[in-house]
Amino acid sequence: MTTTVGFIGLGTMGYAMAANLLRKGFDVTVYNRTAAKAEELRALGASVAGTPADAVRGRNVVVTMVSNDDSIRDVYDGEQGVFAGVAPGTVIVDSSTISPELARRLADDAAGRGAIFLDAPVTGSKPAAEAGMLVFMVGGSADAAASIEPVLLAMGRRVIPMGPNGSGAVAKLAHNTIVGINTAALMEGFAIAASGGIDGASFLELVQSGGGASKAAELKGPKLLSEDFSVQFALELMLKDLRLSSVLSDKLGVPTPLLEASKSLYQAGNAAGHGSLDLSAVAKVYEQWIGRPLAHRRQDNK
Amino acid sequence: MTTTVGFIGLGTMGYAMAANLLRKGFDVTVYNRTAAKAEELRALGASVAGTPADAVRGRNVVVTMVSNDDSIRDVYDGEQGVFAGVAPGTVIVDSSTISPELARRLADDAAGRGAIFLDAPVTGSKPAAEAGMLVFMVGGSADAAASIEPVLLAMGRRVIPMGPNGSGAVAKLAHNTIVGINTAALMEGFAIAASGGIDGASFLELVQSGGGASKAAELKGPKLLSEDFSVQFALELMLKDLRLSSVLSDKLGVPTPLLEASKSLYQAGNAAGHGSLDLSAVAKVYEQWIGRPLAHRRQDNK
Repeated sequence: MTTTVGFIGLGTMGYAMAANLLRKGFDVTVYNRTAAKAEELRALGASVAGTPADAVRGRNVVVTMVSNDDSIRDVYDGEQGVFAGVAPGTVIVDSSTISPELARRLADDAAGRGAIFLDAPVTGSKPAAEAGMLVFMVGGSADAAASIEPVLLAMGRRVIPMGPNGSGAVAKLAHNTIVGINTAALMEGFAIAASGGIDGASFLELVQSGGGASKAAELKGPKLLSEDFSVQFALELMLKDLRLSSVLSDKLGVPTPLLEASKSLYQAGNAAGHGSLDLSAVAKVYEQWIGRPLAHRRQDNK
Repeated sequence: MTTTVGFIGLGTMGYAMAANLLRKGFDVTVYNRTAAKAEELRALGASVAGTPADAVRGRNVVVTMVSNDDSIRDVYDGEQGVFAGVAPGTVIVDSSTISPELARRLADDAAGRGAIFLDAPVTGSKPAAEAGMLVFMVGGSADAAASIEPVLLAMGRRVIPMGPNGSGAVAKLAHNTIVGINTAALMEGFAIAASGGIDGASFLELVQSGGGASKAAELKGPKLLSEDFSVQFALELMLKDLRLSSVLSDKLGVPTPLLEASKSLYQAGNAAGHGSLDLSAVAKVYEQWIGRPLAHRRQDNK
């Protein structure tokens, strides 16, 4: 029996993920609030539904990928939502980054309909989504996750079970907190180096050969040197994740000084109008402070 | 003609560096304030001097590796200091992490004696020093650095010219700022994850497969999971570097919110008595706050 998939949410990430499912031969019905993005996927063989409920009806597996808690509530609840169309036995996977509380509420609602909900956010931005190289961190039944592994591995390279429902969301927020801090830390280091007259390319070479090496430096260092802030993962989405992480940490009673300082930096970047640029545009906050580019080019190479 | 090296400062790093010079066949005279460490190197063929001036006299190259600005002043200045023994033409390399101002002052004093001073701090802690895998970032004459490359590459794997005197020190502080922040960020992420019930080993697997990957996570993640805070790079030395970086940033007029927050975290770790442990013991600051180990072990693996 072919696995049939209902896919809801065709933003930067969702579009690439749905396209990979189609390329791997899954029977996919898509829904997107802006219908034009859904129509584009017809060329790859997708069916297009007019409501979330229609995208879900009769499907074995449902995947949702939208931008925040409010959008998830819009997609799941209400007369034409996911829960209106879902049948008993369906495995519902939400790969959005949402709050752990909402993940647990959705899991309860799914269970009430005999369906299984997994909070399965991903790490990896647009390039990883396009290459099918995402990593899924799964909260909820490990057995259910194993049963739909072919679907997840059509979009990603790894599935890590994290614990009960909500654990995927917690792990994602804790992880993205590290990503957000590491990226801002890179830019803060560049700000000191540039102000001290250090050549940007030499500094990146040092960072990448030393203890300061990171995925953030690997992905964002070259973007900074070429002043290319085209979006891989939007600054405003990082800010959203840090907000969720801040709320979560506060509820858990964890003091998070680095998270709070980073959140302020992305907040400043967003307030300055850089929200739709790549999160590496947090560099612009430092550039405005120091009045010079972070990617300093030394003239004298002696 | 054999290159003769005077080596001053046999702490964790310096001892390993001098041993590598000896193993590679250099003629090395060592000086250390605590003479016992110097005596240990006789077995590898070192000559032992009773003062810095004696370690330097008649040598082509001098390397100093001590812990801070005050120690460097003790070693260089005064009647039995480096400058009392140095001859014209000698290349003096300081691989300590010191302030850029002091580096520039030492370069001026060396020039006054016809010698050449390079500020050449390193990245890499004890394991890299022992394996001869350090990276040198060099401030000062690139020609002089090239002329002693065999000496540097006996202790390290890479030499990156950074600009005029002081640039090595600036680059080192900017880089160690990133190391310090990334290490604390890792622990803050673990604090959120552990408080949310996420298994530590699963969380580290996620971090290392995702955008949160870093050299800090690679080096310190496994130490955290095994609660092994034996020293690679001491917390009190990271705190010292962050203090220097904070002073430098303030002079350069660079706002550094993440550096300041990190400095407070290492300060808290030091105040709690963890200064001589590895810098990853900054984890203990979060552990005290949340009242549980950061390396949470989930019992239920479902």
